[in-house]
Amino acid sequence: MPNLSHTLQQRRQKLAKLIDVPAILWSGSINSRNFPANHFPFRASSHFLYFAGLPLPNAAIRIEAGKLQLFMDDPHPSSALWHGEMPTRHQIAQQIGADIAKPLAELESHLEGAATIPAQDAATWTQQSQLLNRWLLPQQPPQGIDLELAKAIISLRLIHDESALAELRQAAAVTVAAHKAGMVATPKAKLEAEVRAAMEGVIMSDNMTTSYNSIVTVHGEVLHNEQYHHPLQPGDLLLADVGAETEMGWAADVTRTWPVSGKFSSTQRDIYDVVLAAHDACIAKICPGVEYGDIHLLAAMVIAEGLVNLGILQGNSQDLVEMDAHALFFPHGIGHLLGLDVHDMEDLGDLAGYEEGRIRSDRFGLGYLRLNRPLHPGMLVTIEPGFYQVPAILNNREVREKYENIVNWQRLSQFADVRGIRIEDDVLVTEVGSEVLTAALPSTASEIEDLSN
Amino acid sequence: MPNLSHTLQQRRQKLAKLIDVPAILWSGSINSRNFPANHFPFRASSHFLYFAGLPLPNAAIRIEAGKLQLFMDDPHPSSALWHGEMPTRHQIAQQIGADIAKPLAELESHLEGAATIPAQDAATWTQQSQLLNRWLLPQQPPQGIDLELAKAIISLRLIHDESALAELRQAAAVTVAAHKAGMVATPKAKLEAEVRAAMEGVIMSDNMTTSYNSIVTVHGEVLHNEQYHHPLQPGDLLLADVGAETEMGWAADVTRTWPVSGKFSSTQRDIYDVVLAAHDACIAKICPGVEYGDIHLLAAMVIAEGLVNLGILQGNSQDLVEMDAHALFFPHGIGHLLGLDVHDMEDLGDLAGYEEGRIRSDRFGLGYLRLNRPLHPGMLVTIEPGFYQVPAILNNREVREKYENIVNWQRLSQFADVRGIRIEDDVLVTEVGSEVLTAALPSTASEIEDLSN
Repeated sequence: MPNLSHTLQQRRQKLAKLIDVPAILWSGSINSRNFPANHFPFRASSHFLYFAGLPLPNAAIRIEAGKLQLFMDDPHPSSALWHGEMPTRHQIAQQIGADIAKPLAELESHLEGAATIPAQDAATWTQQSQLLNRWLLPQQPPQGIDLELAKAIISLRLIHDESALAELRQAAAVTVAAHKAGMVATPKAKLEAEVRAAMEGVIMSDNMTTSYNSIVTVHGEVLHNEQYHHPLQPGDLLLADVGAETEMGWAADVTRTWPVSGKFSSTQRDIYDVVLAAHDACIAKICPGVEYGDIHLLAAMVIAEGLVNLGILQGNSQDLVEMDAHALFFPHGIGHLLGLDVHDMEDLGDLAGYEEGRIRSDRFGLGYLRLNRPLHPGMLVTIEPGFYQVPAILNNREVREKYENIVNWQRLSQFADVRGIRIEDDVLVTEVGSEVLTAALPSTASEIEDLSN
Repeated sequence: MPNLSHTLQQRRQKLAKLIDVPAILWSGSINSRNFPANHFPFRASSHFLYFAGLPLPNAAIRIEAGKLQLFMDDPHPSSALWHGEMPTRHQIAQQIGADIAKPLAELESHLEGAATIPAQDAATWTQQSQLLNRWLLPQQPPQGIDLELAKAIISLRLIHDESALAELRQAAAVTVAAHKAGMVATPKAKLEAEVRAAMEGVIMSDNMTTSYNSIVTVHGEVLHNEQYHHPLQPGDLLLADVGAETEMGWAADVTRTWPVSGKFSSTQRDIYDVVLAAHDACIAKICPGVEYGDIHLLAAMVIAEGLVNLGILQGNSQDLVEMDAHALFFPHGIGHLLGLDVHDMEDLGDLAGYEEGRIRSDRFGLGYLRLNRPLHPGMLVTIEPGFYQVPAILNNREVREKYENIVNWQRLSQFADVRGIRIEDDVLVTEVGSEVLTAALPSTASEIEDLSN
């Protein structure tokens, strides 16, 4: 892997070509859990991590014309008792190639004309707002020089450099191992929580964290299901959406769905193969210049076609997609950017995900699409088609009326043992096409059955 | 386990006897991690949990004269897609025995004269401050009616009721299993992280969380070591301070120290036995009426005596304790309160830990004592003596001069393979003495060796 300070220098130099105002990025502070000494694990702001490399709490960096200044306080002498010897500000500055290292209080005299991006925690964005004398709220779109900075950072972070890719490959490899462990652990597990433990155990063993709260559930139809208390029944499918994050913050994001019994029922396998066909078709289509929105529509088309073949949908697949019939079963987007954030740069709203001038569709089938840009080499995206029987959608009276003759509800009821299936991989756009960073994890139904037995 | 709503009703009725102003307790909000949709797991305020029972985000309860009002918003209809069907406000109200359930916005007309305790997250304590029109900062001691409320809650939470004990026993049992798994996993582990994963895996498998960031380290001399990257070497001792927390928030807190090789060296065993002697003596002394501060001093005495016997300290143990010589190796307190928080009610500073009128000592050997009260039946405390060779203490020139003839530095150097040992259990004060909730976990060196082989 390239040397850290060299990598950071290159990123700064690229930034210098894009903006000519100084940028100050705060790392953020530690969030108290139930009392101050009992805190959530620290997670530095991703923008800070991109340019500072290390997860330093309560630090700020100032970047101007390719130069890096580090502002942080040395640990209090008494902290050596509790936290051991910590590197000094100057040692850290050397490691990350900072030209100057100063106490945090000195930042006050280096604020003029600086752009920034708010950190996520209130202590930090309040401080940023006070110091820079303007409201810097994480939920508000950036404006003025802050918007300029955001756009410049986006253009860099969209295209991963070699250092980033080395980290992303590590996260992907550990995530693949975690999913294999989950499949292996399933036959003996009684609860979702046990499979989750087997998977996160692999990530923790490699001294990584999860890049988001894991979804490990027999109720895959609940898209963001963060509960793990359900018992595993032989006829269930288990959907596991679990990803690792390296110590420097780079993420993976992978989903597999496997049968608790070790064997898909014929109905489960039929639907699984439809989702897999969409997954494979989308990945095959990824290459520079292709619109990600078109990949989403391809998935919609393949799913619609597959459901027609199974007799669940009736009609021409093009028409079905146009009337969002696929979205009854595949209500989310085909994927998103992946990098330091599992939805990369989503702290900036759709600024990173959507090409300038584009906005979210209000169509049911497109409104949840998080990425709408042409693909370029170096972009890392997820491809994650799915099929779900969401009661809130399928039991909705308006929906049932609108799609009365489109969905064969009778036929659909035969697939009651398929509540949710998703197959998700992390795909790098290359000069010639794509590379699946998580390709070592099997995706076909037969391979999955082999692993979960 | 007693019925939840009945338990909560009893707690409210006890509170009503102690204060006559209404109390409003907020649960707190979800902390964003790197972007809003990627958040830390929610942890409700412990005071809220004590009276509301369930970890409901963005909720508030108002308690007056034994009556319970619940203020929370029903989930947005669209959330069913992402989070499934959630219980309504009214269903939750029924479960917890609330008399009334209203939208959060209606809280505004029920604020008058109400006392509160600030939640830990800034979004919530800012809102509390605005609504109640006074600063409610988590780091500031409560005043006025808020202080009255805090004192009333402390007097309740100090003495655990049966429901609390049922939860605390569950947390203890899972924690015992986690430590056993850690010992069993050690021979095959190469990194601290792998042992941590084995331990937290047990906790996660039981659908619990850790009640604090685990310490699993071969550098036990760093008291709050939250790093897990060190390789395990055959001559190392591994110190693991890991505890489970139930879904309702009740904590356990246990430490064991075991040899990576499966066998203590003779020097390690010598020191281990000193720490164990202190541990056993303290537990034997626990009974109603005893001062916890005296338990701390007993530990200091036993450790000093043990170190004299090993030739590490020179002199009379009483004198040694008076000059804080034991604290060179045992610089922290003998333990703390345990309940919904691992340092129970530490969000209120020393208000819970210190009997009214007492303040922290400025003596090196006593300043870190977190609990200084007479013991009462129903109190749960940790007992956690330790021995550490902390470079920041032992290499300090003033220390070496002051204790030049007290410590046999030459002799001490023969114990270089003992960097840190701690033995910690959770001990309930009973009517007649004490009950160790974590007694199922072996603590003698021989038992530990048996488990880690």
